[in-house]
Amino acid sequence: MLVSMKHTTVPAYAAASPKAPLERTTITRREPGEHDVLIEIKYAGICHSDIHTARAEWGEGTFPVVPGHEIAGVVTAVGTGVTKYALGDRVGVGCFVDSCRECDNCKAGLQQYCTGASGMTGTYGATGRDGEITYGGYSTHIVVDENYVLRIPDSIPLDAAAPLLCAGITLYSPLAHWQAGPGKKVAVVGLGGLGHMGVKIAHAMGAEVTVLSQSLRKKDDGERLGADHFHATSDPATFASLAGTFDLIVNTVSADLDLGAYLSLLKTDGTLVQVGAPEKPLPLAAFALLQGRRSLAGSMFGGIPETQEMLDFCGEHGLGADIEVISADRINEAYERVLASDVRYRFVIDAATI
Amino acid sequence: MLVSMKHTTVPAYAAASPKAPLERTTITRREPGEHDVLIEIKYAGICHSDIHTARAEWGEGTFPVVPGHEIAGVVTAVGTGVTKYALGDRVGVGCFVDSCRECDNCKAGLQQYCTGASGMTGTYGATGRDGEITYGGYSTHIVVDENYVLRIPDSIPLDAAAPLLCAGITLYSPLAHWQAGPGKKVAVVGLGGLGHMGVKIAHAMGAEVTVLSQSLRKKDDGERLGADHFHATSDPATFASLAGTFDLIVNTVSADLDLGAYLSLLKTDGTLVQVGAPEKPLPLAAFALLQGRRSLAGSMFGGIPETQEMLDFCGEHGLGADIEVISADRINEAYERVLASDVRYRFVIDAATI
Repeated sequence: MLVSMKHTTVPAYAAASPKAPLERTTITRREPGEHDVLIEIKYAGICHSDIHTARAEWGEGTFPVVPGHEIAGVVTAVGTGVTKYALGDRVGVGCFVDSCRECDNCKAGLQQYCTGASGMTGTYGATGRDGEITYGGYSTHIVVDENYVLRIPDSIPLDAAAPLLCAGITLYSPLAHWQAGPGKKVAVVGLGGLGHMGVKIAHAMGAEVTVLSQSLRKKDDGERLGADHFHATSDPATFASLAGTFDLIVNTVSADLDLGAYLSLLKTDGTLVQVGAPEKPLPLAAFALLQGRRSLAGSMFGGIPETQEMLDFCGEHGLGADIEVISADRINEAYERVLASDVRYRFVIDAATI
Repeated sequence: MLVSMKHTTVPAYAAASPKAPLERTTITRREPGEHDVLIEIKYAGICHSDIHTARAEWGEGTFPVVPGHEIAGVVTAVGTGVTKYALGDRVGVGCFVDSCRECDNCKAGLQQYCTGASGMTGTYGATGRDGEITYGGYSTHIVVDENYVLRIPDSIPLDAAAPLLCAGITLYSPLAHWQAGPGKKVAVVGLGGLGHMGVKIAHAMGAEVTVLSQSLRKKDDGERLGADHFHATSDPATFASLAGTFDLIVNTVSADLDLGAYLSLLKTDGTLVQVGAPEKPLPLAAFALLQGRRSLAGSMFGGIPETQEMLDFCGEHGLGADIEVISADRINEAYERVLASDVRYRFVIDAATI
């Protein structure tokens, strides 16, 4: 359904094709409709998904693409029907900007698992209900229905808040769903953008937190972030000594892993949660599941109510992401550094430089 | 620890080597110790695991092997310290005859997941705490510690009860743990010895039951057993029409399956439980887990308290296995028919013919 509406031209960084670097360009944003909020973007985090999409590694995609689904900013205009937000409010936008609103999952606030005909509307590269392609947060402004906008607590600086909208909720949701908390032993596999938020959040929830990282290179960092223990997965002794230890393991690593080895680290009835999907199918020896009634599960960021809950939780506990703020002309360089795991722990684009 | 004790010689059927057919022989059973029960075996079910073990398909194994872990019989002697059973009691023995009794799982009645140094003691081919190799139910008598013996309700004939000790509990346990019941949609993959008990039990629990079988060949049987729906997995339309349908799927098929296709049949937060382990690792596309926060889990028969609970449940609901009773000289023929899926639904050996 194409609806005639006014548009405004705004600057953005886009990849014109799968092999092109991101370059400054302009895009149009619709004028805020009745239930829309116009957000002046202050910061946008760089998520690994941005790189996959900009390089068409997750399917052909729609180009040009303006990535960015870790968005923090300030409300600068509201539609006539908006009730939740007012000018000047500090707000965020995450991985999706709409969903069918009618399926059981949408009604239950699990919009990320929308079962409507086209599922949730991704913040970039998707087709919105106005028939237009969505553009993400590497831009100065975005227009979003107020029901898909989150409130950022005053206690979190906007730059450190931006990565919470994807990295934060992607870890908070499984930790909350599988009940990380006092008395629970939780392992986080991989200490990157996702993993470092997992350590902070699991620690704040009261769990005993272990980092399983390829090497001990980030051990001091891990402990500073809240880890009680830190082990190198390159050391086979790690798997022998930690067999049957954890109630919950959250795997943030998309690379191929020996799932059976990680499953063996779970207690009876423990769960290993994948929050990233490797490109290729992983070989799974089912016997590792049978022994100890273990589960392998998946989790995909979070719904709107849970994302707000996460932001409020982070606000109460003084949690934001550990970030390196960059100007927009350094996005391509940042992509290379993300791929080389050379960031502690999230790049955030200063939107004033776009 | 080898303890000197008296032994009695009894007839049994054993495989002398991985390539040998099962033949009549004699084995020794220990005299009942203080806490032991001597059981005169009346019937022993033939489980697919028996064949795997007799043919050393699950590792080298210890030969000769006397298979059989679906045992139903009558108590004919008790040790001086036995308090739970008396002469004439109708009893059963399942997949294990001992465990460490000290680990958290043993204390919690989850002996099947015993984390003691050598785990649970399998009913055959394992080393018991007396240092001797265990021999299973293809025999006329067995001696078992009373804590690992189950009581068979009077309402279940002993021949139909025997398969409950493995096939019954293997399906009851995941159905109970993942809460099959009224309002829940449950699918059972495969209508064999395990699957047919899954249909009966899930139906008796009040769930809406669907059989997913390779063809529609057993459709009438499935409906008679309690299935509300029956679909052929060889028909691609099955996967399209049932997408997102089930709360719980129990997969009884050990052959290689496209796990992603079955995971797609689950609702949000649904679980696919493997109760058998294919010999080779299965390729798993993790994205099927992420979409809908789905889980892939494993389950291995059940602990002693839950096995008793299952037998009592089956007694109340008048459930036994659908069986074909055979004389012991037909065991090898029965093995071939099991491998050809030519049994409805469990062979049970009449121990009087051993």
